[in-house]
Amino acid sequence: MSNQLRGACIFGQSGGPTSVINASAYGVIRAALDAECITKVYGAAHGIKGVLEDKLYVMDEEDPKELELLLHTPSSELGSCRYKIADPEKDDSDYKRILEIFKKYNVRYFFYNGGNDSMDTCNKISRYMESVGYECRVMGVPKTIDNDLFGTDHCPGFASAAKYIATSCMEINKDARVYDNGMIEFGSGPDLIYLPEYDFDMDRFYADVEKIYAKNGKVLIAVSEGIHYADGSFVSEAKTSATDGFGHAQLGGLASLLASLLQQRTGAKVRGIELSLLQRCGAHLASQTDIDEAYGAGKEAVLQAVNGVSGKMVAFKRDTVDGKYVCRFVLLPLDSVANYEKKVPLEWINDEHNGLKKEFIDYVLPLIQGEPKLPLENSLPRYARLKKVLAK
Amino acid sequence: MSNQLRGACIFGQSGGPTSVINASAYGVIRAALDAECITKVYGAAHGIKGVLEDKLYVMDEEDPKELELLLHTPSSELGSCRYKIADPEKDDSDYKRILEIFKKYNVRYFFYNGGNDSMDTCNKISRYMESVGYECRVMGVPKTIDNDLFGTDHCPGFASAAKYIATSCMEINKDARVYDNGMIEFGSGPDLIYLPEYDFDMDRFYADVEKIYAKNGKVLIAVSEGIHYADGSFVSEAKTSATDGFGHAQLGGLASLLASLLQQRTGAKVRGIELSLLQRCGAHLASQTDIDEAYGAGKEAVLQAVNGVSGKMVAFKRDTVDGKYVCRFVLLPLDSVANYEKKVPLEWINDEHNGLKKEFIDYVLPLIQGEPKLPLENSLPRYARLKKVLAK
Repeated sequence: MSNQLRGACIFGQSGGPTSVINASAYGVIRAALDAECITKVYGAAHGIKGVLEDKLYVMDEEDPKELELLLHTPSSELGSCRYKIADPEKDDSDYKRILEIFKKYNVRYFFYNGGNDSMDTCNKISRYMESVGYECRVMGVPKTIDNDLFGTDHCPGFASAAKYIATSCMEINKDARVYDNGMIEFGSGPDLIYLPEYDFDMDRFYADVEKIYAKNGKVLIAVSEGIHYADGSFVSEAKTSATDGFGHAQLGGLASLLASLLQQRTGAKVRGIELSLLQRCGAHLASQTDIDEAYGAGKEAVLQAVNGVSGKMVAFKRDTVDGKYVCRFVLLPLDSVANYEKKVPLEWINDEHNGLKKEFIDYVLPLIQGEPKLPLENSLPRYARLKKVLAK
Repeated sequence: MSNQLRGACIFGQSGGPTSVINASAYGVIRAALDAECITKVYGAAHGIKGVLEDKLYVMDEEDPKELELLLHTPSSELGSCRYKIADPEKDDSDYKRILEIFKKYNVRYFFYNGGNDSMDTCNKISRYMESVGYECRVMGVPKTIDNDLFGTDHCPGFASAAKYIATSCMEINKDARVYDNGMIEFGSGPDLIYLPEYDFDMDRFYADVEKIYAKNGKVLIAVSEGIHYADGSFVSEAKTSATDGFGHAQLGGLASLLASLLQQRTGAKVRGIELSLLQRCGAHLASQTDIDEAYGAGKEAVLQAVNGVSGKMVAFKRDTVDGKYVCRFVLLPLDSVANYEKKVPLEWINDEHNGLKKEFIDYVLPLIQGEPKLPLENSLPRYARLKKVLAK
């Protein structure tokens, strides 16, 4: 075939981890190991930094069974980074170094797994290699629990985080109704939901909470970490009268801050629960649909690249077959994805801006379906144990 | 049989909930419904408060399939309370009221599920009924994630909380190793563990953390909420120089406080993660062994009471058969349990007082074994939905 390109590949993970980012890693690595034209499969240690520092793990050396355990291993197994690559027009030293490494290992395929910034990195590398005439196919694989990648119905990682939050919320909701004294429970839950898509207003928030508390004697509130006031400042950094003197946003975070404010105002027992890292690494509650799609996106990137595609990100298109949810792969130009941010459609948020409509549930429910068969050891998770042999 | 006693029973839940307290509820309710001499099964709304307020749910009216779902429903389904009953010698008004309710419904069996305080309540009711010559069999069923009940190898609820913490810790541990910059991760984990059994010393703590951080560039620390200084004051309430001015213990909790102190001292990225309610209501990560034992304890209490036993708590004795862990039921006098507190044996804690030895792992590992088949609806938990018909 005319578009057959022989050479090694590098795969890297970037940005904040998710419960299923390693499923995409497995999709890429497995498909690359199986591709005849890919001569060697390298995993970059800590994303693009591993390329710049010549720290590449040889995936061919790994036990295939351990690699398969990546399907259920949370976090970024190869390590991640938040390194922002310069514009090649301003400073091309990073690109020269990347080209040097690519040449050293005869790298002809580059797969990068991440969010908006990572797609930007991917895009810049793709264009640079083209500009210097170095033949290399560059593909992006999406991930983010924030679900904010442009052009894709949803992002791998989002559904498992949503499932973790929904399940934890149901459990907390049970717990919050135990005593018959009043209680305001903070965390993720059903009575009130605040998202950053609309400006946050503290007085309106108090009114919302007090209305439900007066009626039910219990309120369960879910807030997004990113909520902000009309002037754009984050609520989590707010210095209100109640926090002045001791308010140090770092100490506790948003849920604690709002819990403290509500407690002072209402006198009720208020508990702030931060899902923190737990929601992005809770692999034991992952959605099998999410795992399958994350794996599929990685595999698809390799298959497309082997077939001659470059400069694209694998995206998801929602379809319905016989009334059932189906996810299809589509390819988006990297530069259409890079640096754009998708939001929750405003029409899915209720008129009071404190809850989500059925449309959101209809959107998210198919994505969280299915329970993985978790590999366990002594009833605790058994994660992949990679040798991580460095390339010489 | 001479010790056959016909009449109704009341079952109540008390104190903080656990992931499996409803499994004990199901054990009691199912066995009571099946017992010929028990004429009616009442569930007290919010523990002893439900008895005092004549708020009793008729369990006979419930759908048996919904009752069975209690095995996987976290929190106290009938509601709980922290009501401390007076000494009958000082004030017997509560007891007179309880006797009145017992007579009204011909209650001859009383089962109470809780921790130390609840066993105290149970004990006082048992002795009072005896003193006034009202024939009634009173039995305690243990529960607590704190595992601090005297005389029993372990308490139902502890193992599921331990499993939740261990799994979350493994996930956080994966997440904490993602970036190659230094990081101190706070929550539950393996590098350092601090328990209240030894006095906490802040300078020693700093030294412990800095030693590991210097070596690994990462530290994962687990602290018990109850850790305290030599003078008995809780660390979570500490006003150290670093928190003076803004330190408000309520805002954030212990992990946030220590994270903030460590951050100021080391300049490292430090994250405080509070497992909070999540660890006591995480039914999706419950241990099947714990569920079985919690259920068994409830059932055993009924079987023993029907056979004439009264004034006892069902406790667990660890045994080994063919090298395998086995849990046996034993009966302890209620007054030997009430108000005593069991601790982690000091010989299970390492010499540096910052970690646990293999003896602890050997103790806890058999308890967390087994994964329940969780009833799900749309891949989310399906909890028991009780009608809660009030007795007239």
